[in-house]
Amino acid sequence: MIIAGLDPSLTATGWGVIRAEGSRLSFVAAGTIKPPSALPMPARLAILFRQASEMLAAYMPQTGAMEEVFANQNPQSTLKLGQARGAVLAAMGAANLPCAEYAPRFVKKALVGTGGADKRQVRAMVERLLPGAQIDSYDASDALAVAITHAGLAGQEKRVMHA
Amino acid sequence: MIIAGLDPSLTATGWGVIRAEGSRLSFVAAGTIKPPSALPMPARLAILFRQASEMLAAYMPQTGAMEEVFANQNPQSTLKLGQARGAVLAAMGAANLPCAEYAPRFVKKALVGTGGADKRQVRAMVERLLPGAQIDSYDASDALAVAITHAGLAGQEKRVMHA
Repeated sequence: MIIAGLDPSLTATGWGVIRAEGSRLSFVAAGTIKPPSALPMPARLAILFRQASEMLAAYMPQTGAMEEVFANQNPQSTLKLGQARGAVLAAMGAANLPCAEYAPRFVKKALVGTGGADKRQVRAMVERLLPGAQIDSYDASDALAVAITHAGLAGQEKRVMHA
Repeated sequence: MIIAGLDPSLTATGWGVIRAEGSRLSFVAAGTIKPPSALPMPARLAILFRQASEMLAAYMPQTGAMEEVFANQNPQSTLKLGQARGAVLAAMGAANLPCAEYAPRFVKKALVGTGGADKRQVRAMVERLLPGAQIDSYDASDALAVAITHAGLAGQEKRVMHA
């Protein structure tokens, strides 16, 4: 099973692809899409759509996952984040990819054991669970984290590692 | 000059295309994109992206316009609306279409003469300004209204009509 995790934002959309074989996880690829902020909004969103589409075509995941958004921040930020998510979700839909959503605290708890974990702790755990992973940003490690959570294996792996 | 107006929402995205020649406006086409609500979110957004892209490829507007959003409603609605706008804006970006934004009150004032006009008044004015327009929803008439506003002619036309 190939799983894509995505962490959409207008400035930096992280993505990560993993392979889950039985209880074994392995790293496939990860990266960060950064549409130049000088471009107008439609062009930036088109870059998110196109690069997400290219990534999905290249790695052909069977399923996808992203973090749920709790829209309790400022409304204009929520609208912008919504627009970025819309472009990325449209790319997933165009690739016929289902997309599961997980609460951020659930992802952190699944990986690190506490819902209050910070990005560095999440990244460190992603690197332990996916030896050899090449990670270029916290956006990419967050995307891999949600893919690992979706694999439903994070709990077991963690238990093994902490035994 | 061919102008596309768009009024994005997840359940019904209105679109309208007009031609502006000097001070003359004419109707080209309009419609409403309604992704089935039973489909998962990525599929619904992919339909918005694809049908908006097909519309833009069919009528090849040189410029686009939509209403600005004031994100003062409930945050989950703002997020959903943002996602729909993101899919539509990505389609505009992919078609290299610039997109102007106008405040809803500005559009209503430009067409009807008052920022508090309702959808029926807007539609009635759109039908007067674009004789023969085929309009299948208030979403489509709102989309045509923002296209007319963008043409910068609504004021003049209105003055002529009221003379």
